[in-house]
Amino acid sequence: MIIVMRREATPADIAGVVARLEQIGCEAHVSQGQVRTVIGAIGDRAAVQMVPWEAVPGVERAVPVLKTFKFVSRDFQDEDTIVKVGGVSIGGGSFTAIAGPCAVEDREQLMRTAEAVVAAGAKVLRGDAFKPRTSPYSFQGLGEKGLQLMAEARETFGVPFVAEVLDARDVELVSSYADMLRVGTRNMANYTLLAEVGRQPKPVQLKRGFTATLEEWLNAAEYIYKEGNHEIVLVERGIRTFETAARNTLDITAVPLIKRMSHLPIMIDPSHSGGKRDLVAPLARAAVGVGADGIMVDVHPAPDAALVDGEQALLPAEFADLMVTIRSLALVLGFTV
Amino acid sequence: MIIVMRREATPADIAGVVARLEQIGCEAHVSQGQVRTVIGAIGDRAAVQMVPWEAVPGVERAVPVLKTFKFVSRDFQDEDTIVKVGGVSIGGGSFTAIAGPCAVEDREQLMRTAEAVVAAGAKVLRGDAFKPRTSPYSFQGLGEKGLQLMAEARETFGVPFVAEVLDARDVELVSSYADMLRVGTRNMANYTLLAEVGRQPKPVQLKRGFTATLEEWLNAAEYIYKEGNHEIVLVERGIRTFETAARNTLDITAVPLIKRMSHLPIMIDPSHSGGKRDLVAPLARAAVGVGADGIMVDVHPAPDAALVDGEQALLPAEFADLMVTIRSLALVLGFTV
Amino acid sequence: MIIVMRREATPADIAGVVARLEQIGCEAHVSQGQVRTVIGAIGDRAAVQMVPWEAVPGVERAVPVLKTFKFVSRDFQDEDTIVKVGGVSIGGGSFTAIAGPCAVEDREQLMRTAEAVVAAGAKVLRGDAFKPRTSPYSFQGLGEKGLQLMAEARETFGVPFVAEVLDARDVELVSSYADMLRVGTRNMANYTLLAEVGRQPKPVQLKRGFTATLEEWLNAAEYIYKEGNHEIVLVERGIRTFETAARNTLDITAVPLIKRMSHLPIMIDPSHSGGKRDLVAPLARAAVGVGADGIMVDVHPAPDAALVDGEQALLPAEFADLMVTIRSLALVLGFTV
Amino acid sequence: MIIVMRREATPADIAGVVARLEQIGCEAHVSQGQVRTVIGAIGDRAAVQMVPWEAVPGVERAVPVLKTFKFVSRDFQDEDTIVKVGGVSIGGGSFTAIAGPCAVEDREQLMRTAEAVVAAGAKVLRGDAFKPRTSPYSFQGLGEKGLQLMAEARETFGVPFVAEVLDARDVELVSSYADMLRVGTRNMANYTLLAEVGRQPKPVQLKRGFTATLEEWLNAAEYIYKEGNHEIVLVERGIRTFETAARNTLDITAVPLIKRMSHLPIMIDPSHSGGKRDLVAPLARAAVGVGADGIMVDVHPAPDAALVDGEQALLPAEFADLMVTIRSLALVLGFTV
Repeated sequence: MIIVMRREATPADIAGVVARLEQIGCEAHVSQGQVRTVIGAIGDRAAVQMVPWEAVPGVERAVPVLKTFKFVSRDFQDEDTIVKVGGVSIGGGSFTAIAGPCAVEDREQLMRTAEAVVAAGAKVLRGDAFKPRTSPYSFQGLGEKGLQLMAEARETFGVPFVAEVLDARDVELVSSYADMLRVGTRNMANYTLLAEVGRQPKPVQLKRGFTATLEEWLNAAEYIYKEGNHEIVLVERGIRTFETAARNTLDITAVPLIKRMSHLPIMIDPSHSGGKRDLVAPLARAAVGVGADGIMVDVHPAPDAALVDGEQALLPAEFADLMVTIRSLALVLGFTV
Repeated sequence: MIIVMRREATPADIAGVVARLEQIGCEAHVSQGQVRTVIGAIGDRAAVQMVPWEAVPGVERAVPVLKTFKFVSRDFQDEDTIVKVGGVSIGGGSFTAIAGPCAVEDREQLMRTAEAVVAAGAKVLRGDAFKPRTSPYSFQGLGEKGLQLMAEARETFGVPFVAEVLDARDVELVSSYADMLRVGTRNMANYTLLAEVGRQPKPVQLKRGFTATLEEWLNAAEYIYKEGNHEIVLVERGIRTFETAARNTLDITAVPLIKRMSHLPIMIDPSHSGGKRDLVAPLARAAVGVGADGIMVDVHPAPDAALVDGEQALLPAEFADLMVTIRSLALVLGFTV
Repeated sequence: MIIVMRREATPADIAGVVARLEQIGCEAHVSQGQVRTVIGAIGDRAAVQMVPWEAVPGVERAVPVLKTFKFVSRDFQDEDTIVKVGGVSIGGGSFTAIAGPCAVEDREQLMRTAEAVVAAGAKVLRGDAFKPRTSPYSFQGLGEKGLQLMAEARETFGVPFVAEVLDARDVELVSSYADMLRVGTRNMANYTLLAEVGRQPKPVQLKRGFTATLEEWLNAAEYIYKEGNHEIVLVERGIRTFETAARNTLDITAVPLIKRMSHLPIMIDPSHSGGKRDLVAPLARAAVGVGADGIMVDVHPAPDAALVDGEQALLPAEFADLMVTIRSLALVLGFTV
Repeated sequence: MIIVMRREATPADIAGVVARLEQIGCEAHVSQGQVRTVIGAIGDRAAVQMVPWEAVPGVERAVPVLKTFKFVSRDFQDEDTIVKVGGVSIGGGSFTAIAGPCAVEDREQLMRTAEAVVAAGAKVLRGDAFKPRTSPYSFQGLGEKGLQLMAEARETFGVPFVAEVLDARDVELVSSYADMLRVGTRNMANYTLLAEVGRQPKPVQLKRGFTATLEEWLNAAEYIYKEGNHEIVLVERGIRTFETAARNTLDITAVPLIKRMSHLPIMIDPSHSGGKRDLVAPLARAAVGVGADGIMVDVHPAPDAALVDGEQALLPAEFADLMVTIRSLALVLGFTV
């Protein structure tokens, strides 16, 4: 931590900061500039980060040198984490496609979609049973019935599946069916849910809050990791900005930044970020180009009748076309697909 | 709903939209412009909003005329809602100060703070027992012990109190102690928590998600209202923007906008929005000026030893000074204080 | 400047940074932490800020301790700057209202407005002759004719006036008529215009770019100051955020932040920030509450016929009402009005 | 234009809007909903857009059906524009690399860079002589001397060059040397500069303002087009968001959105958007994937000694490596390189 003193800080203020640091077992390196005094704190990061430095007399601001997350950091583990979902590996040089309907609506919709996406090369199936909706009047999912249908699709088509969990009280239920859990964008900072998910034995997809900084996102992952679950896949799905021409702004730059900051795999969701069918293919191709570990795509056999997010669903044939291009691009970059 | 067709939409596309509207019992008003055809949908709002219009062939975009929330709207109820917390009224022409420590840390810290803020004119006490923290390594609150201390402060100083609830599983517990529950900014879109809070008999403070639009915020309130709990106070606490000189950007404009859109009271939290002690008084005075129904302020007897958000806590004496100014300003504008 | 080394930085990298600092005449304070080495640079700020530190081998990031602006900083001048416009003082404890039409349209519109706003207490008249418009098909202003009408209004009503300048080639022209020049939000980073305005003898209003950080804004002011013109009034007019319910988000927090960072006066434009008539009075009252040095308000005798921004113009009678309230609030806070 | 009336709008208000529309020669289609009346305006777009609808009694808001720009829209011209710079075509199925130093510093730096980037496959050279810098104390460019050096590089290496113009007064000068002019991000809304650039005979690169919506950007292009210059290439270079881990957030989604809205080519600047060397290659590869018409990359032989933006410059060898990958990816997608 670097503590920048106010211009008008007195020698007593400076001595106070030094004393405070020594009291928590840290060393203080004082540098006297022409205008400001700066104090470097060397020692136990957690102890230093606990002090409300900007409330200490004479302090202007405190600049952390290290991040607040630890286990999910590249500083802690240098090699890439590879997450296993059923028999599928995510991360470490493969490019994985997850696809399926946004929400499970009924058996026929699900089975038709699952068959098509698996044939086109999707390795993991998506399809949610619990949906967080902005309006209380929108369709909220089929609940356990949806999970049962997903389990049936798994048996039929031989692929593992991922499903969202919205409430700490449902973690056990979802975990008893799904091969991978998802914490959605609206729950990224739902810390009690994160902890609960961290205590069950299935891998977890953690979507970025659409307003979360990378550091907050990795702290959310830390909540899961710290409880013992190290199988975490990050999913970038667009952030909220002033630009409203698409639903969200896909933060493609997050991929190389996260790769430097963390050892966890990171995928891209081109469906939810853009929110429009026309945008899915270009954004999915950009995901390959930027070096993401995979994509997650909404597919629906009849988007204009979909109960959730039909605007962004690809038709099965469109998804199949996309996969052909994706595969060629990924091979150029040395990924296994 | 207004449906704008693509330039290249065919007569069949237009007929398709009209048919779809008629099928759900609505009237279609077709206006043929020089470049685009526009179709107005008249009829059951909910039915119209359920169709994924942008997935329908030939549709470019759908522009809602009405909002998705209903009961919390001024369209539904014209007169201001007045929320009762213990004997205290929030809304309807009074300006209410809520104050206390961000988190309950121990009996002495709480009692010293409570005594001071009540003496200075706070009508409701704040002090949280469960804290959502970005880092899993930060202090997370005293839990039930904290609620017991708050109840003790209520007895001693004769004021009701508000406390945050983070998890649907804790709603009953917090509700059994507190006079008012708070759903915090990180949980504004935690819909299962909102529904749970909507089913218990205490008034609720609903903080704005720091990335939520006003419409999303009112939809979150609708989740609570719809379950039967109509005693909702909105709290603006700053939004996330590109400007990082303060913790968040207080969206003061939200106050008159919400007043036009909804009948619910709206307060301002000048402590969490700015995140710095120096900013609290100016922002609190601005809250009076803009016409908010009150403020909620963090106060701590020793901010530089606080376990949570010490940087933004006022000293008791600073709060007392602020209240003197606040009262004079509020009287100029015709509020009762 | 504080230079944070990468985790994998070698001793040679560290020695390289130290050598680079010594080469530009600075001292290097090296602090070896457990994970990262941090190097404090003491010496000539300008020299240090010129090095592209993040391109130097082994460097992760460089954190400036001091801001890049100098003369407009409180570090340089402790007492408040008071700007004189004609006989009117802005800053230093007075609360000044500037009002008038957004754009000059014709003599009658201008004279009716000017008479009304001066009668209500405006001390400076606004009314632009050159308008920057998003669309090339919108009304772009009357040009010199508009300035002549403003000069006529000055004679008639005895108040100085401010007018926007859009182009470095027009600075002399506008300056030959107006008592104060304005650099608008779209030109805040038009550095050749800023320099030109800095070389003429009239005070300048500098609006914040709607996407500018406070530091960028003060750097823009530094461009003017550095050329010799020290008479600068900052005007906060709303920033661009994800919230689109109003035209922009008034960043009210900017006022106390700027007061700490700089000695220049800061006013608020409640008309352009909200962009709607209903929002003007609440935001203007908030401006008084937060401690701004004044407001600038659009007034028009027939807003629904206005050629520019009619949506946000107050009627003369509404402005007069507002001024009565403003005056009472400002007196509570000890301002002279 | 669709005009949504307030709930409390009277029949007289509705009649007033209809009369106003008829007065400007438009038809009014009135749809009476249960809660709101909506009025569709059919007729001359420009006339309708000129009325300040939200200032008209009873009007809640006006929703434009058509955009305010016209000539740069796909509605106006369906086929892709192909821009010629010297003998190089931009747009229409080719993927073009522009590269060179951010700023011209001296002959040796420029010639070494130019030789390398041309050898690696860059088709157009970049290198600025006038630089807009946030701080007045930063290097501002070599001026005409820089243009002379660029012209020399053109002769030596046989490639056209692009250079930024900051000031309307310099347009003729820059145009007399350069093969293509650039209007930079800070000047995107400098309308007098846009008009000046629109009146000279060289193609223009128009960078997106880092806070501009797509519609504002295309309106800026319209300012140039309208003056007679139709040779415009858009350059996305990152927008300002809450995320500060990179310099800006590359809005990759802008590419397919612009392709739908406009016929102009669009390139990506991976150097200025990320602001860090490590980010350039991933973002450049994403640019190919998403379907952009090219990239513009900063290259410098000694980034840690660069006078401008050294942090983001690739070394010549890094650029050559990148071009190999870029070419393979572009071929997969059917581009000519």
